[in-house]
Amino acid sequence: MTDQIDHLRQALDSGRQGPVQRVLSSLHPAEIAVLIESLPLGEREIVWNLVSDEDRGEVLLHLGEELRAWLIKAMDVEAVISASEGLEIDDLADFIDDLPETLTQRVMSSMDEARRTRVEAVMSYPYDTAGGLMNTDPVSVRPNVTLEVVLRYLRMLGDLPSHTDMLFVVDRYGHFLGILPMNKVVTMNPDVTVSDIMDREFQALSVDLTAGEVAKRFEDRDLISAPVVDERNILLGRITIDDVVDVIRDEAEHSLLAPAGLDEEDDIFAPVRRSARRRAVWLGVNLITAFMASAVVGMFEATLDQVVALAVLMPIVASMGGIGGSQTLTLMIRGLALGQISTANAVALLKKEVAVALINGLLWAVVVSSIVLAWFRSPMLALVIGMALILNQMCASVAGVGLPLLLKKLDIDPALAGSVVLTTITDVVGFFAFLGLGAALLL
Amino acid sequence: MTDQIDHLRQALDSGRQGPVQRVLSSLHPAEIAVLIESLPLGEREIVWNLVSDEDRGEVLLHLGEELRAWLIKAMDVEAVISASEGLEIDDLADFIDDLPETLTQRVMSSMDEARRTRVEAVMSYPYDTAGGLMNTDPVSVRPNVTLEVVLRYLRMLGDLPSHTDMLFVVDRYGHFLGILPMNKVVTMNPDVTVSDIMDREFQALSVDLTAGEVAKRFEDRDLISAPVVDERNILLGRITIDDVVDVIRDEAEHSLLAPAGLDEEDDIFAPVRRSARRRAVWLGVNLITAFMASAVVGMFEATLDQVVALAVLMPIVASMGGIGGSQTLTLMIRGLALGQISTANAVALLKKEVAVALINGLLWAVVVSSIVLAWFRSPMLALVIGMALILNQMCASVAGVGLPLLLKKLDIDPALAGSVVLTTITDVVGFFAFLGLGAALLL
Repeated sequence: MTDQIDHLRQALDSGRQGPVQRVLSSLHPAEIAVLIESLPLGEREIVWNLVSDEDRGEVLLHLGEELRAWLIKAMDVEAVISASEGLEIDDLADFIDDLPETLTQRVMSSMDEARRTRVEAVMSYPYDTAGGLMNTDPVSVRPNVTLEVVLRYLRMLGDLPSHTDMLFVVDRYGHFLGILPMNKVVTMNPDVTVSDIMDREFQALSVDLTAGEVAKRFEDRDLISAPVVDERNILLGRITIDDVVDVIRDEAEHSLLAPAGLDEEDDIFAPVRRSARRRAVWLGVNLITAFMASAVVGMFEATLDQVVALAVLMPIVASMGGIGGSQTLTLMIRGLALGQISTANAVALLKKEVAVALINGLLWAVVVSSIVLAWFRSPMLALVIGMALILNQMCASVAGVGLPLLLKKLDIDPALAGSVVLTTITDVVGFFAFLGLGAALLL
Repeated sequence: MTDQIDHLRQALDSGRQGPVQRVLSSLHPAEIAVLIESLPLGEREIVWNLVSDEDRGEVLLHLGEELRAWLIKAMDVEAVISASEGLEIDDLADFIDDLPETLTQRVMSSMDEARRTRVEAVMSYPYDTAGGLMNTDPVSVRPNVTLEVVLRYLRMLGDLPSHTDMLFVVDRYGHFLGILPMNKVVTMNPDVTVSDIMDREFQALSVDLTAGEVAKRFEDRDLISAPVVDERNILLGRITIDDVVDVIRDEAEHSLLAPAGLDEEDDIFAPVRRSARRRAVWLGVNLITAFMASAVVGMFEATLDQVVALAVLMPIVASMGGIGGSQTLTLMIRGLALGQISTANAVALLKKEVAVALINGLLWAVVVSSIVLAWFRSPMLALVIGMALILNQMCASVAGVGLPLLLKKLDIDPALAGSVVLTTITDVVGFFAFLGLGAALLL
C-alpha cells in the first residue's frame, strides 16, 4: 500500500490527470478509499474527482464517516443517487443512514419499490445487530425438490449474490428449515431430494443478536454466510463474512484507539481545528485527574520542603504502579472482549493477579531500594520507597481486575475509560503511600 | 459466552462428569478452547479430559501456545497422533510447528506419504507468509473442458474442501491461468467451455506475500479464497478466509497487548510464577525510564528545595505531554498498520500534528496557568507552567510522529516500544522544561 501511495504521490506531483487515473484504475474501491484517507486535505478532492462513477459508491462506503460526509456535501443530488445505485442492500442501508435528512428522502424515492422495501427492512434494525448487518438477498429452495430442479432454478437466476456458499431451505410460509451447502449441490447426484441432504442442525442467527456475537459465531464456526431469522423462525436475510470482517476490524480499531480517547472515525488528515477540538476533550479529562494527583502531592508540601529527595523519587512509584496496573487491565479488557470473564472466575483471577503483583512488587522494591540507598545514603528513604512500591503494585492489581468489571456494570466502555481511571488510582495511591510513609518515617 | 462459562461452572461444581460433557457437546471446538482458557489451572485439566476425541485436535489448535504445550506434555504419543489426524494441512503444519522435536518425528511418520509431502510443503514456508497460511487442497480444472465435464468431475470427487467458492484453472504444467467461480458453475449453461467464462484477471497471491498483505487483499477485495502461486506462476495451494480472520484477530490482539508489554500468548490464567516473570521484564524496562525521569528531577534538587510548589505541579506537565503524545502515536500506529503512511505524506502529517499540539498547548496552558495563579498566587509560577506545557505538547507531537517511523526503520515494533519511549520523552522533556524554566525565572 505504501508503494501505491508513493506512485500516487508521483502522479499527483506530475500535475496531470492521466497518471493519477492510471493508478486509480488498477485499484479496488476499498484500496482507493485507503489511498484517499492517506492524502492531505487539498489533494483528497483532486483524487476523488478522478474516481470513476461506478466506483464512487463503494469508495464512499469505505471512507470514514466524516470524510464521507464532507465529500457528499460537495456532490449534487444526482451524483449521490448514482453512487448509491451499485450498492448492495446492507451497504446501501449504512450509506443512507449517514446521509443528511434531505438527501435521504431523495435517494429513497429514486429507488424502485422492491429495492426501497428491502432497504427499509434492513434500516428498521439497529446497525450493530444481525438485522442491521444482513442482506435481504438469500436464495431459498423448498425441501421436496431434487437437486436437478435446484440447478435448473439457479441457471434460471443466471447469477447468485456474492458469497453464496449455501442455499436456505424454507417451507411455503418462509420458515427456516435448514441449509443446503453449495458443495452438496455440485457434488451430489442430481436425483437426490433436498430434504435428504440438507443440514437441519445449522443454527440460524436471531435478528437481534449483537454484531459482536455474530462475529464470534462466524469466527468460531468458520462461516462464510449464515441465515438470519425473526422470532417466529421466518427467514429474513443472510449475513456474509465480508461484513463480519468489517465488524472485527472495527472492534480492533476501537480497542486500539479508545484508550487514547480517539475513535474509529478519527481521520489521520482531519482538519487541524476539528482534530484539536476532539483531542482537547481528552486532555481536559486527563487534566482533572492530573490535578487530583497534584492535590495529593500538595497535602505533603511541608514534608517535601524538608525532604526534597521525595520529590525526586515520587515519579518512580507512580509510574511503576501505572505499568503494573495496565498490564492487568489490558488482560482483563481482552478477556472481557473474548467473553472469558464472568462472575464465576473473577475471584480466582483476582487472587492470581494479586499474587503476581506481590511477587513483582517485592522484587522491584528490593531493586529500587538498593539503588535509592546507594544514591541518597538513607536506609529509611530506601525502606519508604520499597514499601510504597509494594503497596502501589497491590492496589494496581486490584484496580486492574475490579475497575473494568465495575465500568462494565455501569455501562461505561472499559477500553475508553479504563486506563485514565486506573492511572489516576495508581498516581494517587502511589503519591499518597510514598509521601505519607515519608512524612511518618522520615520527619 | 459468559452464559456458557456460568453453565460450565455449575456443571463443574456439581462434581459429576455428565453435566460437563453435556455443556461441551453443545459447543464447537473453538468455543471449547475459549472456555478452557477461561478456567483456573486445576479445572482446565478436568475439562480437557472430557473433550471428545474427534474435537481434540481442533481444540488444541485454538488454544494459546503455552497452554497447548502444557496439555500436550501430559498426553501420550498415540493421543497426540490421533488428535492430529482430523486437521487440515495448514492447521496441521501450525500444530506440528509447535510440537517438541521428539513428537514432531513421531507425528510425521504416522502420516501416509501424500499427507506428509503436503505438510512438508507448507512447513517449508515461514508461518507468517502466504506459503505458511495456504492449504494444499485446491481443486483445479483445465480451460478446454465444458461445465458439464466440470460438474461430472466434482460429483466424482464427492466432496469439496471447505470454503470452495472458486475452482482454479491451470494448464497441463500446473501454471495458474485464472479462476472459475462456483457461482458460474451452477448458474451457467452446462455446454459452455471453462475458457469462455473463466476470470483471467484474478490476481493470484505470491507465495512470499506477508500474512498482513494477504489479509489486506482479502479484506479489500472481499475474498473467500484465493490461489497461491510460486515465482513461476505454478499453482501451489489456496488460502481461505477462516485463516485470514485468524490473522486479523492476531494482529488486533497484538496491537492491544503489545503496548502493555504483553503478547498474544499471554494467558489469563497462566501460572503465577510464569506471569510474574514475564511481566517483571516490562516493569524493569519501565524502571529504567522512570529513573531517567527521576534523574532529570534530581538535577533540580536545589530549585525544588526553594520552590516546593514545583514538586506539587510537576506531574501535571509530564502527564499532559504523555496524553497528547500518545494520541498522535496511536493514530500513527494505526496509519502504519493500514499502510496509510509513507515518506510522501509524513511531512504533511507532522505539520498537522504540531499545529494541533500548538492549539491544545495554548488552550490548556491558559487553563492550567489560571488555576495555578489562583492556587499559588504566583504569576511567575503560572507563566512557567504555561510555557512548559506548550513546549511539552509540541515535543510530544513531534515525537508521536517521528518515533514510530524511526522505530520502524530500526525494525523495532512501534506498537511494543512506542509508548514506553514516548512517555520517557514526555516525562524527561516535561520535567526539564518545567523545572529548568522554574530555576531560571523563579530563583
